[in-house]
Amino acid sequence: MSSLSTATKKPQHFISTADFTAEQLYDFVYQAIQHKVQAKYQHPEPRQDRPLAGKTLAVMFSKRSTRTRVATESAVAYLGSQDIQLGVNESLLDTSRVVSSMVDGIMARVGGHHEIELLAKESTVPVINALSAKYHPTQILADLMTIHEHVHHRNNKVPADQYSAHTQHPRETLPGLKVAWVGDANNIIQEILVAFPKVGISVSVAAPEGYVCDEDVIAIAKADAQKTGATLMFTTKPEEAVKDADIIITDTWVSMGQEEEKAKRLQEFEGYQVTMDLAKRGGAKPDWTFMHCLPRKPEEVDDEVFYSERSLVFPEAENRKWTILSVIDRLIVKGGF
Amino acid sequence: MSSLSTATKKPQHFISTADFTAEQLYDFVYQAIQHKVQAKYQHPEPRQDRPLAGKTLAVMFSKRSTRTRVATESAVAYLGSQDIQLGVNESLLDTSRVVSSMVDGIMARVGGHHEIELLAKESTVPVINALSAKYHPTQILADLMTIHEHVHHRNNKVPADQYSAHTQHPRETLPGLKVAWVGDANNIIQEILVAFPKVGISVSVAAPEGYVCDEDVIAIAKADAQKTGATLMFTTKPEEAVKDADIIITDTWVSMGQEEEKAKRLQEFEGYQVTMDLAKRGGAKPDWTFMHCLPRKPEEVDDEVFYSERSLVFPEAENRKWTILSVIDRLIVKGGF
Amino acid sequence: MSSLSTATKKPQHFISTADFTAEQLYDFVYQAIQHKVQAKYQHPEPRQDRPLAGKTLAVMFSKRSTRTRVATESAVAYLGSQDIQLGVNESLLDTSRVVSSMVDGIMARVGGHHEIELLAKESTVPVINALSAKYHPTQILADLMTIHEHVHHRNNKVPADQYSAHTQHPRETLPGLKVAWVGDANNIIQEILVAFPKVGISVSVAAPEGYVCDEDVIAIAKADAQKTGATLMFTTKPEEAVKDADIIITDTWVSMGQEEEKAKRLQEFEGYQVTMDLAKRGGAKPDWTFMHCLPRKPEEVDDEVFYSERSLVFPEAENRKWTILSVIDRLIVKGGF
Repeated sequence: MSSLSTATKKPQHFISTADFTAEQLYDFVYQAIQHKVQAKYQHPEPRQDRPLAGKTLAVMFSKRSTRTRVATESAVAYLGSQDIQLGVNESLLDTSRVVSSMVDGIMARVGGHHEIELLAKESTVPVINALSAKYHPTQILADLMTIHEHVHHRNNKVPADQYSAHTQHPRETLPGLKVAWVGDANNIIQEILVAFPKVGISVSVAAPEGYVCDEDVIAIAKADAQKTGATLMFTTKPEEAVKDADIIITDTWVSMGQEEEKAKRLQEFEGYQVTMDLAKRGGAKPDWTFMHCLPRKPEEVDDEVFYSERSLVFPEAENRKWTILSVIDRLIVKGGF
Repeated sequence: MSSLSTATKKPQHFISTADFTAEQLYDFVYQAIQHKVQAKYQHPEPRQDRPLAGKTLAVMFSKRSTRTRVATESAVAYLGSQDIQLGVNESLLDTSRVVSSMVDGIMARVGGHHEIELLAKESTVPVINALSAKYHPTQILADLMTIHEHVHHRNNKVPADQYSAHTQHPRETLPGLKVAWVGDANNIIQEILVAFPKVGISVSVAAPEGYVCDEDVIAIAKADAQKTGATLMFTTKPEEAVKDADIIITDTWVSMGQEEEKAKRLQEFEGYQVTMDLAKRGGAKPDWTFMHCLPRKPEEVDDEVFYSERSLVFPEAENRKWTILSVIDRLIVKGGF
Repeated sequence: MSSLSTATKKPQHFISTADFTAEQLYDFVYQAIQHKVQAKYQHPEPRQDRPLAGKTLAVMFSKRSTRTRVATESAVAYLGSQDIQLGVNESLLDTSRVVSSMVDGIMARVGGHHEIELLAKESTVPVINALSAKYHPTQILADLMTIHEHVHHRNNKVPADQYSAHTQHPRETLPGLKVAWVGDANNIIQEILVAFPKVGISVSVAAPEGYVCDEDVIAIAKADAQKTGATLMFTTKPEEAVKDADIIITDTWVSMGQEEEKAKRLQEFEGYQVTMDLAKRGGAKPDWTFMHCLPRKPEEVDDEVFYSERSLVFPEAENRKWTILSVIDRLIVKGGF
């Protein structure tokens, strides 16, 4: 009688970009570009193989999300996927063990960050964080890809409706840029803080009095910035943050679950709307661009900026698909770095 | 450095049969028959290729529907699909741009007809109207296929449980027939009016006083009828409408959202129930058949007709699958006419 | 003109294990093992063919279920599947005819058992009972597989993290075992009663006064037990039931829809919690194991047992996937026994 061993190797999760090196983040972006070019332009040749065929990803969302869902499910058209209500009827521990025994990967959107950590601890397959109260790594990977594409196209004068076959590597485009965040101290800026300084992007954060990021997040950002030479700045004045910025980023001021304190928040964020005037007053770079993870409300950015040529929000949304595919391919199909 | 161009060709949508020629409508039906015969009878040979593999269809429904959903999703078993809540959290414009950047096609069931038009205007991929307040094109394509099959089988004396390998072309079976509509002035009869006269089918409409179709719809029907020689008649008396009819069609009198005016509607539709007696009194053709897009309630058609040999409602429902597949194949896989 | 016949053979459904012979139940389990070994260990070779490709399974659930859904949808990653609300808007008869005309199989979770019977009667494709008030056949097939695996591994001293390539046949491992049920008189024990005695497993049932199984279920169990020599015992004392048991099984005392009578039930089930002490007092076999179909609440089994080495609950949950795949493969892909 012969025996068959099960793989006992601990799976590699995607809980935050904080868990990956700069080179690994560049690689996620670089591979995402390859997926996009091959799928959209059949370059260097039409996609023939079906590496994900027969694999299954459990999509466990406690909150609804158009973008993350569509990006994920169109990325995994080759996989099956199923929608699970999390933690309603049994402990997260039991659900994690049961579900991970049936699928090849789990993509989960939870509430508290400890939930995604517990899920990952108990899961026997890779867990991808689709949003937690603390981090949002799939969004920030899409942001890095969008910035890389923009800079590469600008550097190489590629028209907007064309695509360059020979792309630069993200390590040639990202270091040295400066990003300004004008908004809430939420999971988006926290993910930016653990990702951007590490790849050499300077970050200035403007958030109202009393809106502060977690201490451990700031500590990671400071340590990374020291290594790469990126700068870090925190202020309550939007004008100060946008000074010399290549990219201005914001997000909603009133996230799901915060509807009750909406009036209070709108008051505290007065002066934080991203406008052409704010960028000019503060002294952003002449060719500054704008990003937003959507859905967008007019209070945080006006129509003039949002629908302008400076706005990268629609490519940014599309790139959710290619970066999620890149993460699935690396962690679930290829088994991690 | 070489550059890759994106396809800038405007996608061809499926918003109403009004946008297609008679020959194109025949072709949708003819190809649907080929899909059905190949899938169900492996004729002329088992389906080997997977032309839809790797493509993704976004299914965006603001209302629930058993038939349209199952027909669509079983048609696109080779594609991924995802369920999206429309217009809840952001503008339809933003959703349309974002979703169409991630998928190969969009199938949407909206409220007002202007919503599906806006979706199509902004979308970079084909949009298929799965039901709007004004039109219901996928249903009427299934009706055309069902009528074609019935006439073809009757002409060729094919038993009900068998299938003819050498089908006639729809242009040989459809022109010259007469359809009677007995019911509400809703999206179903409006779609019939823009499709049937164009392919040479005469239409008589019985609807109660005050239930009138849109003017532009009637104008299209009149122009089409003039070209093909089909007749058009509007009346408030069911008996007049069914005179010489080959097919009698009705639908619910109380659609989703109209529950409040149910009592009023039931009163106004008195005498509109389709029965053997109504057909006899009015003088329908001896071999008249019955169709209904389902779900059905007894007030609009009695059990005797609904479950009789004359009733084509179950093949009509199945044909939703093959006609939707035909539309997807033509517009999304083959890129349009 | 040539004619193509439709298949008029009545489909073989999976409404209860009561409808299958012992040899057929063994075969479901045996094939489930082959699916598991091939998928998880690529043995005897990686799965190359895609026998389910292009087929569609309608998943119609009137209640939510994590395990059944994930097990089903990960099993059918090669198929499309769609989620349908049952019986909301039209008769079950009409829904059954319409849906079965569009798909290759139906997996349905209904309320009353007569609903699944009606669905099967009208359906032209195989119907799989995913849970009814009376029976739960897919769960009990997973239980048989789990017991078989456990006994086989114990007999052959296979370590827990390894898998034997040359498995014994279930007919060598299952007959002669004894199962004790300590709990409600619900669909789980009813399915056990019509399955286990038939494959030679003795069953002792402890349920509180007034909690009794259906008469026809007990009659089937008695007739089966007489043929195979298995024993059957009913008691209100948990200690009596666990005497000499190889496996102790329980389930929640408060099923969905019974929340109102929770307090009353908790009182009536006093003394029914499965604990190490209960097993010892009653005289279970020294190497007794524990099973539970999940989700679990602490009142029916304590943490010490539930998370112990004796507990087979997590493999039992995973095996839902492989047994459902086995049923789909046999009934839908291979067309039945």
